[in-house]
This record gives sequence, C-alpha cells and structure tokens, in this order.
Amino acid sequence: MEFKIKRNVLAKTLGNIVKIIPPKSTYTILQNIIIEAKDSNLSIQATDLDIFIKKTIPAEIIEEGKVLIPGKKILEITREANIEDIIFKLKELKLLISAGNAQFNIPSLDYQEFPEVPKFPDKKWFDLSIGEMGEMVESTIFMVAKDMSRRPMNGVLVQLKENELRIVTTDGARLAMNKKEKKETAGELIIATKVFDLIDYSKPEEQMEIFIEERVMGIKFLDTTVIARLIEGPYPNYEGVIPKEFTGNCTVEKEILDGALKRVSLVASPHIKNVKFDFHGNSITLSASSSDIGEAKEEIPCVYDGEKLGIWFNANFVLEILRHISAADIIFKLTSQSTAAVVKPKTDEDMTYLLMPLRIDNWE
Amino acid sequence: MEFKIKRNVLAKTLGNIVKIIPPKSTYTILQNIIIEAKDSNLSIQATDLDIFIKKTIPAEIIEEGKVLIPGKKILEITREANIEDIIFKLKELKLLISAGNAQFNIPSLDYQEFPEVPKFPDKKWFDLSIGEMGEMVESTIFMVAKDMSRRPMNGVLVQLKENELRIVTTDGARLAMNKKEKKETAGELIIATKVFDLIDYSKPEEQMEIFIEERVMGIKFLDTTVIARLIEGPYPNYEGVIPKEFTGNCTVEKEILDGALKRVSLVASPHIKNVKFDFHGNSITLSASSSDIGEAKEEIPCVYDGEKLGIWFNANFVLEILRHISAADIIFKLTSQSTAAVVKPKTDEDMTYLLMPLRIDNWE
Repeated sequence: MEFKIKRNVLAKTLGNIVKIIPPKSTYTILQNIIIEAKDSNLSIQATDLDIFIKKTIPAEIIEEGKVLIPGKKILEITREANIEDIIFKLKELKLLISAGNAQFNIPSLDYQEFPEVPKFPDKKWFDLSIGEMGEMVESTIFMVAKDMSRRPMNGVLVQLKENELRIVTTDGARLAMNKKEKKETAGELIIATKVFDLIDYSKPEEQMEIFIEERVMGIKFLDTTVIARLIEGPYPNYEGVIPKEFTGNCTVEKEILDGALKRVSLVASPHIKNVKFDFHGNSITLSASSSDIGEAKEEIPCVYDGEKLGIWFNANFVLEILRHISAADIIFKLTSQSTAAVVKPKTDEDMTYLLMPLRIDNWE
Repeated sequence: MEFKIKRNVLAKTLGNIVKIIPPKSTYTILQNIIIEAKDSNLSIQATDLDIFIKKTIPAEIIEEGKVLIPGKKILEITREANIEDIIFKLKELKLLISAGNAQFNIPSLDYQEFPEVPKFPDKKWFDLSIGEMGEMVESTIFMVAKDMSRRPMNGVLVQLKENELRIVTTDGARLAMNKKEKKETAGELIIATKVFDLIDYSKPEEQMEIFIEERVMGIKFLDTTVIARLIEGPYPNYEGVIPKEFTGNCTVEKEILDGALKRVSLVASPHIKNVKFDFHGNSITLSASSSDIGEAKEEIPCVYDGEKLGIWFNANFVLEILRHISAADIIFKLTSQSTAAVVKPKTDEDMTYLLMPLRIDNWE
C-alpha cells in the first residue's frame, strides 16, 4: 500500500473519526483505525463496538492496500506536519510516513483483528438536512440523563409519529422535545448521543439520509457512513407527562429572567439550587435562601394571565434551558405548585421544555 | 457600617483578592474577607495564613465600620449585579446588599476571628516597575518544582548579588534565571509563587516597592499591600551548576526547532519524552523511538561551531522553554552528552535556561 494525500484533508477527516475512539483503558484494538487505499480513494474506519464510522476521501493511490494503525497517533502526526502532502507507504507491516523532512515508522497490526462491521440497514427511513438535524439535536441533547443506570434515558428518542419527526430527551426531572413536519413512515428508535457528535455540522445545507433496521440505525451524509446499534427501549411515555391544559401563561424577557435568576440563585442551597418563582400581577418575584449563605429576592416584570402562584424550580435547570433558547421572550405555561410547567421560546411552537417543580416541604 | 461603591471597581478588586482564598476544605475562616469602611475608602483584606493582601479603593462611606464576610460569595454577587452602584449596609450582623432590584442578606462573622496580620517590614529593599517584575517572573516561574517535598525549590529565589537582581527557579532537572542590573544592598529570599499571582500586571509602568525583614517580605504597588512569609532555605547552589565554558554553540530558529521537536517527540516514550539531538555540521538531527509507538527522525538547519555531539533531552522540557522565549533565534551552549546545556534567547543575555541531558543507557 502506498498513497499521497493532502495534509489538511486527512487532518480534518481523522479529527472527526477519532471522536469515536474510546479511552485507552478499554479494549486496545479499538485505538486503531483501518485505512484502505483503493481506486482513487482512501477509506478510513473506526469503532467503539456500538458505533461504526467510515469516511471516504480522495487521495493519490500509488499502490492499493489496507492497514490497521493507531488512530490518534496518525492524527497527531498529520496535525503537526508542516507540509502540504504526506506520503504513506506500508513496508513489512511498518507504515512509513514522509511529511517533508520528518520521517515516521509506525508498526501496524493485522487488519483482520478489526471488529466485524454490521450490515448497513436496507430500509431508508427519512431525509433531513444536516442543519435541521443540528438544530433539533442542539436544542434537546443537553437533557439526556447522565445517570448511567437509566439506560433508555441515556439515549435520544428519534420518533416519527402523526406526520411529525420528534427528537425527545429526558432525565426524569425535565424533558425536551423538538419536532418538525415529516410525512414518512411512522417508527422510532433510541440512539446514543455519541452518534450526533460524529456529524460534521459545517455544511448545514447538505442532506443526510437515515436508514433503519430492527437493531441498527444507518446514517449517510457527505463522505461519511455511520452504523449504530440501537439502545433497547421502551422509552418513557413522554406524551403522558406533558400537560395539555394550563391555568396560567407568563411571558417574560429571557435576558431579564436569566440575570435575576443567576443573582438570586447565588444564595440558594448549592445542592438543589431551589429558587421560588412567585407569579403575581405583572411580575415574578424570585427568592431564595439557605441558612449558611443568606437570602436574596428580586422582582422582574412579565405578562401573566393567571392566578397568584408560588412554585419552586431548580435554578440551574431553568438557566440551562434559557441558554438553549435563542428567542428574546419565553413563555411559562403553569397549572399548580406541583404540576409540570412547560417552557417554550415565544417564537417557536415546535420546541417544548417540560420542567418538574421542586417539592419543598416548608411552603412559605 | 454603610457604603456605596462602583460595581466594576469592587468586582475587579475582589477578583484579585479572592485569588488568595484557599480551597473550601481547609480552615473555613479563611473563606472570609475583611471589608472596612473608613474615611472615604474601603479596605479589603484576605489571607491564606502565609500571604496577606490588602487593597484600598475609594467608596462613598455613609457610616464607618468593619465586617468579616464570605469573599467569593460577595464577588459572585458583585459580578452578577446589573447596576452601576451597589449599596452595602451592616444591620445586626447581617450585610444587606442592594444591587438594583436585587436584595441580598448575608450573615457576617465577628471580624476579630480574622487571623492576626504580621507587621509590614520596615526595611525597604528595592524598587522595580510592575512590567519588569512581570517579565522576570513570567520567564522563570514555570520551572518551579511541583513536587511538594522539595520545599525551597517550590519557591522563587529573589536575590540581589554583584549589582544584579536575579530571579531563579529550578525543579532539579532544569533551572531558569533572569537578571537585571540593580545596585541596592545584597540580600536574598525565597517566596511562594502565589505571591506573584496577586500582582495586577495591567499597569506595567507603575512602580512596586519591595521590603524585607528576617521572616517576611512586603510589597507595595498601586492600591495594594502584600505581606508574605518567607520559605525557609537554603536554596540550591545554582551558580555551581551553571557551566562557564562550552565546547560548542548552536544557533537555531526557534519556530523550526519547535515544529520538528513536536513531530519527532510524538513517538518518544510518553513518560520520559526522550528525543536525541545530534548536532553535526550545520544541522541538528532529531530522533526518537519507542518499541510500541514507532520511530521518527527529522533534520533541521542550524549554525553550529562544535564537534559532532549526540545528546538526549526531555522534549517537553525543551518545548516548554521555547514557549517562554519570544526571540526568533535561540542558542544552545553545549559541552558533552552528560553535561548541563544552556539555552538562551539569542537577543537576551540576561536570560539563562539550564537543562540537564537525559542519561540513556543504550547510546546509539
């Protein structure tokens, strides 16, 4: 095997590929990537056993061949090279790399040791632009449960239902849903968040195709193919927990709420970050206290159409939602002290955040 | 006590002060700062028991007084405030803070619990501009030993000798010295690196005054007074280890060496990062290898006036020195495979880095 390739093309490609490489402590063969030179392309593959990624890029192939080689080391060498073209040549199981005046000699492994790649799913499910996928994922993925004992909630629900494509995430105390009109066949799957890290969002107008099979999802976009094993369900019944009716609606300027909440929450209990929201007339009074840190209170203007209502939220959960909303105004839809509240950007009906209130025993 | 102060002035001052506050796990009283309102100034003090810092800033004093209060919490409140002036008022051991619509109520402590501050040294030692001190410290402080068992080497040697002010640091394998002509009384002290973090380097033209006493150092600059307990010596005999004569001199372009060394060291042993420098003719050949990662070699141009010499260095140590040199060319002064080498920026005679070669058993 021998080929010549543009340094910047290879560096960018490897930079995306190595994101899938697991930490060094696990199964060491996964530290390696397959590089195959064939026709006038190089194809590069890596996996963490759950997800397989393959990218195909143009290269000047001098001799076809295939090699299994440490992925991060090849990326480091490519990044540090100070020359436009790098030449790779396999010689007696050693990969010789010529990068200008620098010469490297890296031992390779037998490529047959690379894990078996599952078959790419036959069945096309739907198309979506990379930009649309990026926006749906960005607005929801931060709410995926970090607690590894809640397996389905560690993934992202991708669901097609009632002519809507829905991306849903939840950690049990909060839920995020973003939806988009889409008329393809109904279906659903739960997929690891890591899959979405592998997408190169720099060309938002390009399309991606999603394929589905019983146990795997397939994604094709630009020069990339991803095959990912599904997370086993069932996913929590999220539709059942979203209230349909509300007794109060409050519109508030996002920046004003954000600033006041950051201030008041400074004295909240560091653990649960409990801040009380008192909705009354056309204002919200935010208040918090903890015996050792102190007390704080701030009143901010809003447009509120319901009964006087006091409700406790985890300030960090609210601030995190605010960070993911680009609209200037947000809406709180409320029912009672103990009912889930819905938070939405005012200008985007497709986006829903659900927030459980904190149960504080000593109501003031 | 009651006073009104500009939010940005207070935030900047506290931002510097809290750097001295130790982690929460230690003696909790040190989490607190003293704020004293007197005449038309506010003075703020904090300590970690080794170093005491006091800053004095103008404020509108409505009622004089003194309070001991959590430092980081007051800084957070000040940073998050969205108003120009903040009003502080002490009422029954609670500090009421009015920051626009936000009201805080923070419990205070008895200020007599604050540790006793050592007397500021009487004896003035020397003056230096903040910019000169900054440059001397920046170029040397990274070499202070991190290993906490080598007490004097965990500090910075400040020495006045032979009409030179010298700042010296070493970790046992490397040494850095920066010097400047200064005719004041000879003397020396070893001081914790943390002292230099407390200096606000944003006004380089302003002077700082250094005071000395048997066990403490005093520093005055701008609105700040620092009193720091000295680290006990003796400091290693650094002059004895710097060779005076060399058998070879090599001038090399810093950027070229930096790039090549970064590349070649990618295959060096991750632990000792051993790279061989072969000085010969007018080039240096850098080479490295480790059995599991591979081999690399790169030749770079230089101007060398000595005998052929092969010498191993820890690449990370050399790269770290290069990062702290702003000159375009650097000089290696060499004697043998096992003798300390001197590295200097070509354009700065006052700066000396000393580097011990690695002892590699299998010389090639």
